[in-house]
Amino acid sequence: MSAVLVLLELAPDGLVRGSRRVDPAAAVLSAADLAATRGDGVFETVSIAHGHPQALEAHLARMGRSAAMLDLGAVDVDGWRAAVHEVADALADEPESWVKIVLSRGVEGSGIPSGFAWGAPSPDHRIARSDGVRAVTLDRGLRSDAAATSPWLLAGAKTLSYGVNMAAKREAARRGADDVIFVSSDGLLLEGPTANLVLRIAGELVTPALELGILPGTSQADLFRWAETAGIPTAYRRLPVSALDDADAAWLVSSVRHAAPLHTIDDRRLDVDREVTAGANAFLLGRTE
Amino acid sequence: MSAVLVLLELAPDGLVRGSRRVDPAAAVLSAADLAATRGDGVFETVSIAHGHPQALEAHLARMGRSAAMLDLGAVDVDGWRAAVHEVADALADEPESWVKIVLSRGVEGSGIPSGFAWGAPSPDHRIARSDGVRAVTLDRGLRSDAAATSPWLLAGAKTLSYGVNMAAKREAARRGADDVIFVSSDGLLLEGPTANLVLRIAGELVTPALELGILPGTSQADLFRWAETAGIPTAYRRLPVSALDDADAAWLVSSVRHAAPLHTIDDRRLDVDREVTAGANAFLLGRTE
Repeated sequence: MSAVLVLLELAPDGLVRGSRRVDPAAAVLSAADLAATRGDGVFETVSIAHGHPQALEAHLARMGRSAAMLDLGAVDVDGWRAAVHEVADALADEPESWVKIVLSRGVEGSGIPSGFAWGAPSPDHRIARSDGVRAVTLDRGLRSDAAATSPWLLAGAKTLSYGVNMAAKREAARRGADDVIFVSSDGLLLEGPTANLVLRIAGELVTPALELGILPGTSQADLFRWAETAGIPTAYRRLPVSALDDADAAWLVSSVRHAAPLHTIDDRRLDVDREVTAGANAFLLGRTE
Repeated sequence: MSAVLVLLELAPDGLVRGSRRVDPAAAVLSAADLAATRGDGVFETVSIAHGHPQALEAHLARMGRSAAMLDLGAVDVDGWRAAVHEVADALADEPESWVKIVLSRGVEGSGIPSGFAWGAPSPDHRIARSDGVRAVTLDRGLRSDAAATSPWLLAGAKTLSYGVNMAAKREAARRGADDVIFVSSDGLLLEGPTANLVLRIAGELVTPALELGILPGTSQADLFRWAETAGIPTAYRRLPVSALDDADAAWLVSSVRHAAPLHTIDDRRLDVDREVTAGANAFLLGRTE
């Protein structure tokens, strides 16, 4: 196994007191860790290119926002950054790899958070990036204003409670698809279970507005940066499902897989714009920070 | 620590191949276990009275239904029952204890589920059972028909992705309350984050209809059995939030805490019927199976 595991020692206030590299095959978590019994924690997955973690500061900032939404206290950004670099250095020979950082509320009753960084070489995503993937739209159950009205629903936090995200991916597979586009109960496009949605409508790259309780995408933000330098306008907007009919191209954008063009959404066929996709992925893959 | 931990060895098809008692302070889970990284698994919490697991067959059947909703395959009921008894036997000197059984999809990519049974003496719930608790109603975000229309939302499955349930309890604490009554986005009473709701309306004990995507309560079912022998009629019904105004008593019913009367729901004061509550709890505490 070429996985890399760095275990963190955290103080009750979240300060990273230390870290140590351990055998990834070893058991490291208590059966009473709230990550395992309640999905009670937050995470980020950061892509690594030749040892360079990508969009790391954006990921760390987002982990801080997620942790705040779960009352997990302040995230020790310096400590977590160091853990990511420790994993990234160990994977520096890999052209593409990734590290998942996990912050748990810790062993129940202990008051001490637990955390680790787990890294591995990336799967080969070349076919998804060039030929594209098929997605289905699935109801996310929540209204588009849930994040504003009901913060305890944790819409927009990247938590360890991803059971529904995983079940949605299995439902997609049952329908012969590779991925999912979640739709709010009031009919607005949201995001994928592990990716952001970008549509091209009338020459503009558009992604759903962040106030809809979705995760602000780190890779999507960088994709928009690239688009602007390439002269392609970008926008954040509230998009009804019918906006899919107006799109002439679409992508699911995430760390690790980067920009995967969508050749099919439900019964709609879309063209894969190989030139734009290749340009976007070359930029995303080339980031050294 | 007087906790008891039994670790299961599971086959890819879910068969329990063996179990061993291990030090509850030991690390037993991989950092790549999907319980810890995705909340991807199911659980049950079973109360134990003087070494007797209570409503165990109902809990095991419910775990089987939850596992099916998550495509986790068949649950080896005999194997899990044995693990529960192993923990219960170790806690036989305790008048009240509990065991949590956890079935995870296992280490990512392994195709082999993981599982354990964790037991401990129960906290002292006597004040909650006699004087009652205060609950607030909170939006659960989902429509009442979500379980029927959108099974990937896993409404009605008892999964390890309990982040929202835990966040709702924290929101209750912020509002000066002890517990939560979830309400569907279309205004129907549902359940608590870790309990079922029972109202007394015009002399009848009523609990929300199960088709609303809630967990069928093992303790609530036994409470209804007791009520019928005591001559109190019972019913399952779709209850709008306004039904709270018609109730002259209410309880949150769960394993371990059993029947906790509600003295306050939002701004409503309710009488605690000490006689009925004591009768119900004597029955629930006295179960030897």
